[in-house]
Amino acid sequence: MGETASSKPLTIAIAGLGTVGVGVIRLLETNRDLIAARAGRAITVTAVSARDRSKDRGVDIAPFAWEDDMTALAGRGDVDVVVELVGGADGPALALSRAALDAGKGLVTANKAMVAHHGLALAEAAETARAPLKFEAAVAGGIPVVKGLREGTSANALTRVYGILNGTCNYILSQMEASGADFDEVLAEAQALGYAEADPTFDIEGIDAAHKLAILAAIGFGARIDFDAVDIVGITGVRAADIAQADTLGFVIRLIAEADIADGHLLQRVRPCLVAKGHPLAPVDGPTNAVVAEGNFSGRLLFQGAGAGDGPTASAVVADLIDIARAQGGPGEFGAPFAMPAAQLQPFTPADPGERTERTYLRFTVKDRPGVLAEITAAMRDADVSIESLIQKGRAEEGGEVLVAMVTHEGPEAHVRRALDLLDGSESLTGAPLVLPILAS
Amino acid sequence: MGETASSKPLTIAIAGLGTVGVGVIRLLETNRDLIAARAGRAITVTAVSARDRSKDRGVDIAPFAWEDDMTALAGRGDVDVVVELVGGADGPALALSRAALDAGKGLVTANKAMVAHHGLALAEAAETARAPLKFEAAVAGGIPVVKGLREGTSANALTRVYGILNGTCNYILSQMEASGADFDEVLAEAQALGYAEADPTFDIEGIDAAHKLAILAAIGFGARIDFDAVDIVGITGVRAADIAQADTLGFVIRLIAEADIADGHLLQRVRPCLVAKGHPLAPVDGPTNAVVAEGNFSGRLLFQGAGAGDGPTASAVVADLIDIARAQGGPGEFGAPFAMPAAQLQPFTPADPGERTERTYLRFTVKDRPGVLAEITAAMRDADVSIESLIQKGRAEEGGEVLVAMVTHEGPEAHVRRALDLLDGSESLTGAPLVLPILAS
Repeated sequence: MGETASSKPLTIAIAGLGTVGVGVIRLLETNRDLIAARAGRAITVTAVSARDRSKDRGVDIAPFAWEDDMTALAGRGDVDVVVELVGGADGPALALSRAALDAGKGLVTANKAMVAHHGLALAEAAETARAPLKFEAAVAGGIPVVKGLREGTSANALTRVYGILNGTCNYILSQMEASGADFDEVLAEAQALGYAEADPTFDIEGIDAAHKLAILAAIGFGARIDFDAVDIVGITGVRAADIAQADTLGFVIRLIAEADIADGHLLQRVRPCLVAKGHPLAPVDGPTNAVVAEGNFSGRLLFQGAGAGDGPTASAVVADLIDIARAQGGPGEFGAPFAMPAAQLQPFTPADPGERTERTYLRFTVKDRPGVLAEITAAMRDADVSIESLIQKGRAEEGGEVLVAMVTHEGPEAHVRRALDLLDGSESLTGAPLVLPILAS
Repeated sequence: MGETASSKPLTIAIAGLGTVGVGVIRLLETNRDLIAARAGRAITVTAVSARDRSKDRGVDIAPFAWEDDMTALAGRGDVDVVVELVGGADGPALALSRAALDAGKGLVTANKAMVAHHGLALAEAAETARAPLKFEAAVAGGIPVVKGLREGTSANALTRVYGILNGTCNYILSQMEASGADFDEVLAEAQALGYAEADPTFDIEGIDAAHKLAILAAIGFGARIDFDAVDIVGITGVRAADIAQADTLGFVIRLIAEADIADGHLLQRVRPCLVAKGHPLAPVDGPTNAVVAEGNFSGRLLFQGAGAGDGPTASAVVADLIDIARAQGGPGEFGAPFAMPAAQLQPFTPADPGERTERTYLRFTVKDRPGVLAEITAAMRDADVSIESLIQKGRAEEGGEVLVAMVTHEGPEAHVRRALDLLDGSESLTGAPLVLPILAS
């Protein structure tokens, strides 16, 4: 504003021209004047790189310089910030990111896997170079939750951060709920609609949500990012019958990513959970994401919105670019990517989940024969698990398999595991039991 | 980080030691180490001012310099940032704020009335002085929604910003809903619980929500702040019977503050609305606030949390201070308080609400005699208002007053007003009709 520096455009290079990369180009074009007014200067694409130069993407990339080797973007003198939209924890994305920061350029990335695995090293590189490293788009798409935790709740000691961080899983679970259909059928439908990838493993096994959780936990708790410590259970074991039972009991089922701090131990978990219908996360359906942060002064905050898609993700990428443009590039203005300098992030010991207490939903599929209920309830008694409610659902048409579902009173998770150990190998069970925690309010 | 500047504390003066001022002192003390780690330096109170020096506030103010005249805080050499927590649109708060910015000091304020009335002039002063002006705590308590719109959605052209911005009204309406009690009774209860002021006018007449809306509209739409253009209706006309009717029809009633842009015209309104039970704002109850922002790339975003209280408000004040401390005070780092420079904010012409279309809930109290329904429905027909559903509720015990409630199909608001004009002065009506819009999804 009034300075010469403010009229110099912020120049960017984009690596990766998939839907998000194209979305960024389209957004910068559509909202050009408004972005310049808010950023204090224009944001201009100068160079791009992708696998295939000639592919028709619906946007004209002819005005931009082209690099076959994306790492070369980091060496260009006409680039202030590299936007990494290639994906993958390692490989070319990481090489480019390191090269950009080492060259003193800013880095904006949507790459949750890379940040979850290498965020600490990248933050150190950014801090050393006094260059901005920003990754709003890596967590919860268009929801400004990285900023929300890094800056919005910065005055608070957070006690707990949790939410719905994977739109594919949330779409599948809420669709199962709405239609009564089973997992495989809804997954196929989600793939047809573009809500699930051809290879959905990262999503349905909870890995994608775990990447995002590890990032939020680092920012929220001042923790050294520790993806390997995230305890992960995906949604493939959830049946339509579980959703129906949960409904009867007053719950919906959601894949919940959750981190908390207790006694200096950090617990990070991704698990399908029963969520009480009155809880703010219960009505979150479809591919929507939502994050709850509980601070010691702010109380409970909720951030909700589109968790994926080219528009929302581009919105997050460009918000990062506007932040960088506003700061005008002076040294030391960008602060620490994880809210405090990487060297000050604490290496928390992972917490032992077995010491935590919670209410639990347990579902057994059992043979329809006398004594099965007695066997299960005896195991619960012997493991000190107290049963709050139990539903036995009548015999299925074929096979004679019966569903036994129960909710326990609050108790140590270790007791539930002991009960399951006691039942392990029982001839009464026709399959592995499903254990779903009930999300604490 | 590594610079000499980073180890120099950010020094602040606090004007106003009510619950929020005391909350800020307590927060800075409780979370001291964490704040220093995130801010890159300590944040230290050096001076305070309030009406009564000797009052016991539960915190020790002896270590701070005291000023009887709060404006003197702006002249102190040992103060980087003045925190204004006095309140009131004009008078001492405004004098202090101007003095602080004119002296080149930063200003952090929770004063929604002052920002709604004088925000533009204050922003100009801040931009001229290259000093930070921040007011996260002025809108929606602990929810980082000023930051959310200023920075989180900065890449977007927003089409609509709306939400629940007054915790007192939301407490009263959701309590009326839960208990079936009428307005006066619940207001008295809210006053006893501290959710409503002794003089609740600003809250229940919608003025407080309008202050906040005008601030959000300026940031979200790049508009010159224009509090006088906000169309305001409070909640005093809502009866328990309306809430019951709304429930029957699938709605709850909430005080909604809403702004949108269409054809270059800015519409700003605060009104009790019927909100469909499936809408994300419907489950927001008690003193909670929630804001929805709809961007052309981000899609719909929701921010929710505690809208008031000393802890949440202090959380927002200190987040602003951490932002200032992080920026380390270099000139030009703070950007524009309203997301773009004050001189670039547009003076939008207020929109004519009569040209908008919506569905409307109308409630008449009428005499229990023949022909009344015919008179009302004829007026609707003559004004081109199409009725979607109508409920006539049987005679009350005494007085013979009958309730007629209806929901219209979507149509111009001007038509509804014409129908009411036709009925104006009718001897069939025993009181003024209540008109509540139905919030568009």
